[in-house]
Amino acid sequence: MSSVPLPPFAQRTSRLRASTIRELLKLTESRDILSLAGGLPSPDSFPLIDLRRESDRLLSEFGPSVVQYSATDGVPVLRSWIAEHAGATFGRTVDPETQILVTHGSQQALDLIGKVMVDEGDVVVVEDPGYLGMIQCFDLYGPQFEAVPGDENGMRTDVLAERLANGLRPKLVYVVANFHNPTGATLAFARRQHLAELADAYGFLIVEDDPYGAIRFRGAELAPVASFSDRVVHLSTFSKMVAPGFRVGWCIGPPAIIAMLNKAKQATDLHTSTFAQYLLANLVSQPGWLDDHRRSIVPIYRERADALADALAAEFGERALFHRPDGGMFLWATFPELTNTDAFAVNSIEAGVAFIPGQAFAVDQQPRSTARFSFATLSPEQLRVAAARLGQAYANTTKGTP
Amino acid sequence: MSSVPLPPFAQRTSRLRASTIRELLKLTESRDILSLAGGLPSPDSFPLIDLRRESDRLLSEFGPSVVQYSATDGVPVLRSWIAEHAGATFGRTVDPETQILVTHGSQQALDLIGKVMVDEGDVVVVEDPGYLGMIQCFDLYGPQFEAVPGDENGMRTDVLAERLANGLRPKLVYVVANFHNPTGATLAFARRQHLAELADAYGFLIVEDDPYGAIRFRGAELAPVASFSDRVVHLSTFSKMVAPGFRVGWCIGPPAIIAMLNKAKQATDLHTSTFAQYLLANLVSQPGWLDDHRRSIVPIYRERADALADALAAEFGERALFHRPDGGMFLWATFPELTNTDAFAVNSIEAGVAFIPGQAFAVDQQPRSTARFSFATLSPEQLRVAAARLGQAYANTTKGTP
Repeated sequence: MSSVPLPPFAQRTSRLRASTIRELLKLTESRDILSLAGGLPSPDSFPLIDLRRESDRLLSEFGPSVVQYSATDGVPVLRSWIAEHAGATFGRTVDPETQILVTHGSQQALDLIGKVMVDEGDVVVVEDPGYLGMIQCFDLYGPQFEAVPGDENGMRTDVLAERLANGLRPKLVYVVANFHNPTGATLAFARRQHLAELADAYGFLIVEDDPYGAIRFRGAELAPVASFSDRVVHLSTFSKMVAPGFRVGWCIGPPAIIAMLNKAKQATDLHTSTFAQYLLANLVSQPGWLDDHRRSIVPIYRERADALADALAAEFGERALFHRPDGGMFLWATFPELTNTDAFAVNSIEAGVAFIPGQAFAVDQQPRSTARFSFATLSPEQLRVAAARLGQAYANTTKGTP
Repeated sequence: MSSVPLPPFAQRTSRLRASTIRELLKLTESRDILSLAGGLPSPDSFPLIDLRRESDRLLSEFGPSVVQYSATDGVPVLRSWIAEHAGATFGRTVDPETQILVTHGSQQALDLIGKVMVDEGDVVVVEDPGYLGMIQCFDLYGPQFEAVPGDENGMRTDVLAERLANGLRPKLVYVVANFHNPTGATLAFARRQHLAELADAYGFLIVEDDPYGAIRFRGAELAPVASFSDRVVHLSTFSKMVAPGFRVGWCIGPPAIIAMLNKAKQATDLHTSTFAQYLLANLVSQPGWLDDHRRSIVPIYRERADALADALAAEFGERALFHRPDGGMFLWATFPELTNTDAFAVNSIEAGVAFIPGQAFAVDQQPRSTARFSFATLSPEQLRVAAARLGQAYANTTKGTP
């Protein structure tokens, strides 16, 4: 109606990048493709029957308060469960009144941390390769990212220590300690202790993001970084443990920081869904429910991880290098013959299989000879077919090169 | 464990104010007080039986995708319903693919708009008195607020026009057109047209927030500002129409702005609850359901608004001046004998009734002789008792003054 242009966007939007992964996922949805590209948990793991029973009980027995506005920090029954659950893992008391904030998925906790902690130019340490959703989220607040390399044992804390000794002064260090996205790596016990010591010595805050910890299918659970220092904001979520579509996550941290995150959350969206909080709290606080549920879903992931690893090993031999993950949803592979995996990815879509090239997880966004494969949503049989198609696509990619 | 202090908060947190209302609400929860202070919809209006039926159907018949991750813009069935519903109200086509973003309550839409539109120092026009949740939310992005007075017909667009003519160049103008919080006022038809013309002439964007429009209990519906200009981001929500505890709202606007809000939402929290979106979409898209539901809940609000207005008129006569609202949840009164209502509010809590002093809604946060009374959550009988207690508290407040 008006010829006057719309007002300009805020300057920070120039740093807002759409996720290449989400773009690629849209592409794969529209065709008959076996997708190893997604980051979705297995729909076979969702406890629909239990959710139905609890939802019915909630809406028939608990009265209107379960769909009313509620407190910003979260409904008390959920905060109590989180405090108890996390307290057992951390090996120290977690106060449900002052140390917990329930968030709209753990992604929102990242946004709130960016909002209350990050000034333009502040140094934020991330692992490289890393979870780009975190960079995408923090980028709006203008930090300077410092990429620290990771290996099969997680972030190289020795490299971080060296840079700290040389003057690096980060405000935050972001780490995914269990079954990292994209590498599947688990931060070694000694590195967890080391990272906590560095935080205590240099005064930075650790953001320990733990979306996948509940899906461990091999080896013993390791104490979280939060058990070695109280300079940690620890994030977790029901997304992989129960189902992601409710968007219920939480963060646990020092009272002063939780109080500020709470104020920011109140201004941002008042509170997380009352109904979803009650529903999930009632479900997981049934004695034994979560252990039983984990016992039923973890083997699904183990079987799929092994099926994909076996099929890739058979198909690629030495041409694909990878470590078998101990949990989570991702297998990370290096293809030494390829300088980058972009053409391989395109050829794979032609062959009917999708994955994410390593470049998408590189902090510098430059090409890499790596790839992320998610094994969570396909059956073992589909994963074997997918590996065969990858073999075909790989042959097409290297054809003509010596 | 460490004596090193935690890292400092981001500078923007100095602008983060806790809501005095939320603080006051905490106080009233702990005592036997009739509360006119809240902003909660009536729990008697929540369709628990219908929600239970739809939730049961959703979790038994629709498969795991209802609790899986979903697209950032919202689930298609909900976007279709919004497009149809809003299209009918706006009198123009709304494209569900490019003009709608589902948000975690409409409060989140405000945060996302602040994020993508507001640079430090940008001028944002707000009505005075106004919804402080919006100021609290935008404040983090550092705008300069320009307060334009409102009266019983909403924002004084003549005052805005005069300031625009004198050089004011706002980026955004925020308006609650129906049953304003706190004043209960409805923006007059001619002012809606006028505001749209001003936006088209001066190039600013209108943010039209409409949480209460569905609760009209007197008079004919007025066309939204969005029907007179496409330079409008129109916010709405299920919070008062169905129930707030699901946190499902939405915004409708120009495709370029919705696309940027979508990118920001993806970085912020990926998407709104899949389950809640399906649940509410299935409920409201049943033919006739929403009309029937509104016919059943609107009389609750009308009866309560009238009960409070009658009781205040009987109790206070000329000492309290107010307009009877045509909808919504709030009655706004001026007490000409009082220079401010703070002591009156304290005495009221002593007498067993709570309300919010006008100061809490003043952009300059200075004392006012006004007060906001919510009639939504008390029965007519309770409202009459509340008015009597207010009379008692008022007498105690003015006792000793000539």
